[in-house]
Amino acid sequence: MTVITLTTDFGLRDPFVGAMKGVILAINRRVHLVDLTHEVRPHDILEGALALEAAAGFFPPGTIHLAVVDPGVGTARRALGVNAGGQLFVGPDNGLFTFLFARPGWSAVSLEGAAYRLAEVSPTFHGRDVFAPAAAYLSLGVPLRRFGPEVGDPVTIAWPAARQEGDAVVGEVVHIDRFGNLATSIRAADLSPLGPDASLAVEVEGVVVSGLSAAYAERSAGALGAIVGSSSRLELFVRDGSARDRFGLGRGTRVTVRKRGGPA
Amino acid sequence: MTVITLTTDFGLRDPFVGAMKGVILAINRRVHLVDLTHEVRPHDILEGALALEAAAGFFPPGTIHLAVVDPGVGTARRALGVNAGGQLFVGPDNGLFTFLFARPGWSAVSLEGAAYRLAEVSPTFHGRDVFAPAAAYLSLGVPLRRFGPEVGDPVTIAWPAARQEGDAVVGEVVHIDRFGNLATSIRAADLSPLGPDASLAVEVEGVVVSGLSAAYAERSAGALGAIVGSSSRLELFVRDGSARDRFGLGRGTRVTVRKRGGPA
Amino acid sequence: MTVITLTTDFGLRDPFVGAMKGVILAINRRVHLVDLTHEVRPHDILEGALALEAAAGFFPPGTIHLAVVDPGVGTARRALGVNAGGQLFVGPDNGLFTFLFARPGWSAVSLEGAAYRLAEVSPTFHGRDVFAPAAAYLSLGVPLRRFGPEVGDPVTIAWPAARQEGDAVVGEVVHIDRFGNLATSIRAADLSPLGPDASLAVEVEGVVVSGLSAAYAERSAGALGAIVGSSSRLELFVRDGSARDRFGLGRGTRVTVRKRGGPA
Repeated sequence: MTVITLTTDFGLRDPFVGAMKGVILAINRRVHLVDLTHEVRPHDILEGALALEAAAGFFPPGTIHLAVVDPGVGTARRALGVNAGGQLFVGPDNGLFTFLFARPGWSAVSLEGAAYRLAEVSPTFHGRDVFAPAAAYLSLGVPLRRFGPEVGDPVTIAWPAARQEGDAVVGEVVHIDRFGNLATSIRAADLSPLGPDASLAVEVEGVVVSGLSAAYAERSAGALGAIVGSSSRLELFVRDGSARDRFGLGRGTRVTVRKRGGPA
Repeated sequence: MTVITLTTDFGLRDPFVGAMKGVILAINRRVHLVDLTHEVRPHDILEGALALEAAAGFFPPGTIHLAVVDPGVGTARRALGVNAGGQLFVGPDNGLFTFLFARPGWSAVSLEGAAYRLAEVSPTFHGRDVFAPAAAYLSLGVPLRRFGPEVGDPVTIAWPAARQEGDAVVGEVVHIDRFGNLATSIRAADLSPLGPDASLAVEVEGVVVSGLSAAYAERSAGALGAIVGSSSRLELFVRDGSARDRFGLGRGTRVTVRKRGGPA
Repeated sequence: MTVITLTTDFGLRDPFVGAMKGVILAINRRVHLVDLTHEVRPHDILEGALALEAAAGFFPPGTIHLAVVDPGVGTARRALGVNAGGQLFVGPDNGLFTFLFARPGWSAVSLEGAAYRLAEVSPTFHGRDVFAPAAAYLSLGVPLRRFGPEVGDPVTIAWPAARQEGDAVVGEVVHIDRFGNLATSIRAADLSPLGPDASLAVEVEGVVVSGLSAAYAERSAGALGAIVGSSSRLELFVRDGSARDRFGLGRGTRVTVRKRGGPA
C-alpha cells in the first residue's frame, strides 16, 4: 500500500480534506492516507513548505506527498508533480516545494492530462479536482511523465537560512510550535564552525542565552534556553513554559549566535 | 476494504471519535476510516448535514457514512440506516439525512437489532454503542434489512434553498468556511435561467457585486466577489481576505441575485 | 493489520504527529493508525492518561497504544513498554499508564535497545525517535522482553477517585468535554451502595441536583442534571447547554452525592 500524505491550509472544520480523500479512494483504495497538517495559516506557502520539509523525510521511499496551499487556485499557475529523493510531491507551482529544488536530482512535470483529473474541475478547489486525482493515479503506478510536459523552472520562494556576519551566525525565527518553542533558520551544521555547544551565546531581542542545552530539563523551570531541536534547527524554549508567551516574538525575529565572551 | 467516513460534533480533543473507531475495528479491521469533520457546532444538525452532503458524493460506491449529531441521544428517537445513491448512511433520525430523502430511490430501516450494537448501551453515547457497531456490521456485509423494520417517514429538517422573487433569485448564507467565504443556498442551476454569469448582480446587506468571477484571482486584493464554488453553490468571497470578517455576516443572511441593470 | 493508536499533547498544527506516523510506516506499512487525541493540554499527564483509559478498552486485543505526554523528554526518565489486559502500551515512564498498574497481570520493560529506535535520537522528540519505532517493531511481532530489562516499579501519579465521607460519596471533576459536561471521579459502582439513582442528590458548589437522569433529555432545556455517562462516570450536564459555562468550574471541583433527604 502506497502512503499518501496530505498537507493543506483547509482546516478540519470544513469537509474539504474529507472530499479529497474520497476522490483518492474512489480511484485507488489500496493507499494509506496520513495527515501532516491542515492547520497551515490560510495562504501561508512558507509555513506549508516548512511543515512538509520537517516531516517528509521520515516517510518511506515512494511516499506521495499531496500539498495544497494555493492562493492562486483557478488562475494560470501550473500544477506540479515532482520526483525528489525517492518520493513524489503533488501541488501548486507557487514555491511550496522550494526546498526540493535546492538539492540536485529532482524532476518535475506540469500536471495537465485531463485523464488524471476529475471530469469537472471547479475554479476554487483544485485540491479535490486536480491534485487529489493526480496523487491517486501516481499511487496506481502511472509514471509522472504521463501527466504533462517537463518543468525546468518551478517557482521558488525566499527561503530563510543562516548567514555569517563577522564572527556571528545570524538567522531568524521560522516557526513557533504548540509548546511556544521558537525554531530558527539556523541549523546544527551552521553552528559547528563556531565551536562546542557549551561555548556559544544566543541572542534574541537583547536577551542572551549562554550555552546550548542538551535537554529542555537542563534549564530550571521558567528559564529561557537554546537547544538544537528535532529538525536540527536551533530552537529557543522556556522550560515548562512558552518562549512565545514570554517574548511575544513572531516569525522573522532576528537571532544571533556568537562564541561566548567574543566581541558584542 | 470498505470505506467508512465519520462526521460528528464531538470535536477532536476528547477521545470520543477514537472510541468509535476502536469499536469499528474490533468488529472489522478491513475498513478504511476517513474523518469528514468532527467540528460541527455542538447539536447543529443542519451544519452536519451540509458537510455530509458536500463530501459524500466524492466517495466510492458502497461507502458507509457514519454521522452523529445527536441532541436527542438516549431518548426514543430512532436510529437510522439508509441506502441512497449506492452508499449507506448511519445515524440518528433527526434530519441529518434530509438531503437524501429529497431524491427518489432511498430506503431506510430503524436500527434495533441487539446483535448489532454493543452489549451495554450507554444513555449518552450512541455514536460508540449503537452507530459505530452498525456501520461495522454493514461493512461486513450484513444487509440493512436485518437491522430492523423499514422506515418510510424519516424526520426531515427545513432545508435552505433558493426561491424566485419576481425577477430575482433569493437565497441565504448557509455556511462560512475557514477562509471566510460565504456559501449560499443558491446553486448554479438556480442562476442559469437569469442569463450569463457576467450579466448578474449579487446583493448582500446592501452591497452589490457586479458579475460572477471565474476565479478568486479575477478580483483585486481585498475586493468582494461572487463565484460558483466547489459545491456548485454561489459563494461570496474577499480576494486574499475574509468575507466573514468584512461583513460580520452569519448563516441565514439574505442574498439576492438579479440581472444587472434590472429593476432594483 | 495491527491497530496502533496515538495519544499526544502535540496538537495538529505542527507536523509532529505526521512525522511519528512516517516513522511507523517506514518500519511497518501493515498497520492501522488511529488518533485518540492530540489535544491533551501541553504536559498534562493526567489528562492524557484519562483519555487513554476512556478509549483503550474499546479497541481489539493486540492493539498497540502509543502515548506521548512527555515533559521530561531528553532526561533520564525511562521509556516504557507495557503489556496489560491483552494490549500493549508505549510511552514515557511518568505516570501516563498509572491506570494500567492498578489492575493485576501487567508486565513492563524499559525500552533501551538501540535496534528499536531511530539511528539518531534527538533530545526533544522521543515520540518520533524512540516511541514510534518501538510501537512499529512491536506491531511486527518483536516480543516486549527484547526491548530491554523488566520494570517492576513504574512511575505512577495521584489518581482521582471517590471516597466515602460519612453517608456521602465525595469525588471531584476530572474532565470537561466539548459539550461542557463535567465528568467526575465518581463511578457508577461507587454510587450503587447509596440506593437507586432516583433517590440520590448530587451537590456541586452549593447547587443540588435531585435524582440521576437516564438521558440528557429528561431535563428541560437549560436545566442542570446528573447522569452516569459513557465512561461509567457520574457527569454533570446542562440540557442543550454547557455546565462549564454555567458554573465556570474546572478540574478538581468537589462533587458530593447523598441520599435525598439525608443529613445535609
